[in-house]
Amino acid sequence: MKTREIPPGFKDFLPGEVKLKRKVEEQAAALFASWGYQEVITPIVEYLDAIESAGTGADQQELFLFQNRDGRLLALRPDMTIPIARLASTKLREEPLPLRLFYQANVFRCNSPQRGKYNEFWQIGVEMVGASGERADAEVIALAVETMNLLGVTDFQLSLNHIGIFNGLLQESGLLRDEQEELKLLVIKKDLVTLEKELAGWALPGDIREAFLMLPVLHGGLEILERVPGISRVPGAVAGVHELQRLFHALQAFGVEDRVVIDLGVLRGLDYYTGVVFEGYSSNLGYPLLGGGRYDNVMERFGWPNPATGFAIGVERVLLAMQEPPALAEPKCIVAGRDLARVMEAAKRLRNEGWIVGLDVQGQTREELEMLCRQRNCRLVLVD
Amino acid sequence: MKTREIPPGFKDFLPGEVKLKRKVEEQAAALFASWGYQEVITPIVEYLDAIESAGTGADQQELFLFQNRDGRLLALRPDMTIPIARLASTKLREEPLPLRLFYQANVFRCNSPQRGKYNEFWQIGVEMVGASGERADAEVIALAVETMNLLGVTDFQLSLNHIGIFNGLLQESGLLRDEQEELKLLVIKKDLVTLEKELAGWALPGDIREAFLMLPVLHGGLEILERVPGISRVPGAVAGVHELQRLFHALQAFGVEDRVVIDLGVLRGLDYYTGVVFEGYSSNLGYPLLGGGRYDNVMERFGWPNPATGFAIGVERVLLAMQEPPALAEPKCIVAGRDLARVMEAAKRLRNEGWIVGLDVQGQTREELEMLCRQRNCRLVLVD
Repeated sequence: MKTREIPPGFKDFLPGEVKLKRKVEEQAAALFASWGYQEVITPIVEYLDAIESAGTGADQQELFLFQNRDGRLLALRPDMTIPIARLASTKLREEPLPLRLFYQANVFRCNSPQRGKYNEFWQIGVEMVGASGERADAEVIALAVETMNLLGVTDFQLSLNHIGIFNGLLQESGLLRDEQEELKLLVIKKDLVTLEKELAGWALPGDIREAFLMLPVLHGGLEILERVPGISRVPGAVAGVHELQRLFHALQAFGVEDRVVIDLGVLRGLDYYTGVVFEGYSSNLGYPLLGGGRYDNVMERFGWPNPATGFAIGVERVLLAMQEPPALAEPKCIVAGRDLARVMEAAKRLRNEGWIVGLDVQGQTREELEMLCRQRNCRLVLVD
Repeated sequence: MKTREIPPGFKDFLPGEVKLKRKVEEQAAALFASWGYQEVITPIVEYLDAIESAGTGADQQELFLFQNRDGRLLALRPDMTIPIARLASTKLREEPLPLRLFYQANVFRCNSPQRGKYNEFWQIGVEMVGASGERADAEVIALAVETMNLLGVTDFQLSLNHIGIFNGLLQESGLLRDEQEELKLLVIKKDLVTLEKELAGWALPGDIREAFLMLPVLHGGLEILERVPGISRVPGAVAGVHELQRLFHALQAFGVEDRVVIDLGVLRGLDYYTGVVFEGYSSNLGYPLLGGGRYDNVMERFGWPNPATGFAIGVERVLLAMQEPPALAEPKCIVAGRDLARVMEAAKRLRNEGWIVGLDVQGQTREELEMLCRQRNCRLVLVD
């Protein structure tokens, strides 16, 4: 007997799980389509330089790499934003803008596995290419909220920020590149203890040090933006605050503002974001269900400068967060009998009526069939 | 500007193609489910030794291999039969038999690309584990035929054989292993000219040489099986003929016999088949749309001896073969206006009525919007 296990960090989905997963994906896909988004599918692999040149900030350590016949390095796609940017910039550039695209896809990161974090995981998401401004941002965020409502994540909350507020401060800070990276990582990890210790050791203007300590814990309604000018008046921060204010008003028009909090500690891990960023949470999961934001500099790296925004939902995470998995009861039966033609006739009629029909292909006895029906919670139809 | 191409042999699906692909997959999945098959999903990778030990005969040259963190070799799955055998034998062995499973998945082979042949391609298919006999074989074949009917492949034809007829002859032939492999390959490639030349050069009993020349071109109805005893009386061949006769009668009960021809030249490329094998064709494609058969020795290699049968449909090939791609007209509109709340209200109402609604997120002029609507063949709804 040979290898029967699967590599660590990978997962089999059994029938019950697949039904829930498909239901989540189908509901989301139907909603995206009704908002005018169209589905695309890209290959499981991209050339490594396509991913690296896009400025994902994805650590090469995190990529599954292998060498193609042509000697070039391929990577299993670590997200769908880059492949879709690559696709749109090559094959959809004649389309009227904005492009609205969506996907249902597996993506790959070489992680140390933990609950809800796999090496292969499934995402559904949207990308809007060719539109900037608060209406475009608001549409994408409202769609994320509506998707969570539709999927029954009843306690969903979306945390909203503008990357320019933090980045503006970083630029003014005089910190070295390494220090900037470490600072960002500590804020993302919400490790405030280490953050305070490190900030004390770096050469920094006192007001900027204070700002870095306050921003990560500032969250609430629109009113918290009023506190930013008291913390920082760097131009990036001021512009970011104005964008968030306009966006929040647009979200009110979309009727989703009660699901949105402003959280100045949300930075996202990827380097390509340039504006609004957001993460979606459910109270019973310690990590985001979805994430997204504006990435206005990615498309130009593929030779087609265009603003863009989007989000990705983690399907496995949504399945964990769904309070009440929908009931999936289906009428099932087994049809058995000696005369196969008459068995088939009955099976056909029942399938047309909406039954799931398994045939007795082994000529089992009535007792065996009754036992099987009890195990499978289905009805027995004898045709003889 | 950086790499924008994708590796050779891989493919992007644009929105129109994705709609057709999803429609094919959804129709097939719904049919499989109504026949009692349940969907499973497996990881994109398997340990190489799981694939090799299963006796696929898959050439390692054809596999996309890479090394995992644990130092072991992983392969992108070259088919779904082996992963499902691995999954069933580890996670579904307590379930009542037969197991009926289906999948919709991408699989990977390192090919030289040609029309309809990619390095990554999509399959939908079923596996039935734990049942042998003609009723089980007939169910799977009838399901393949019904799927093609449902998908509108109107000129579909299924070519049926029993691998025991050819293998019985091979065993009696006294040919060396290499010669056997070459012979099999020539029959699969239907290269009858080279076949005749090679057969003339090998040391073979005359009647067996004659049989190898005749079998590959024998195809037709049930009556052609009557000619096999005149060609070969080796035990494997005789048993195979009897199984095919019983199967054909079962297919008549399923009402699909008019789509089935017996074709003694169908061998399939994989080593794991042990009994009935089949391929499905459309007249406008030169390669099979689907293939399958019985593989009674695979499960035991995963420690769970059980007979099994199944088929895989090539989704891209079906898309090429479909005579009339179904019309996918959808009511679309763009909603625009100054007051975002009123725009959203109108959009919501239209979506509830089944419209696909794109918002004007950029505040375009009426002229720009009218132009956009002409390009996209959709209606303009102004809310002001």
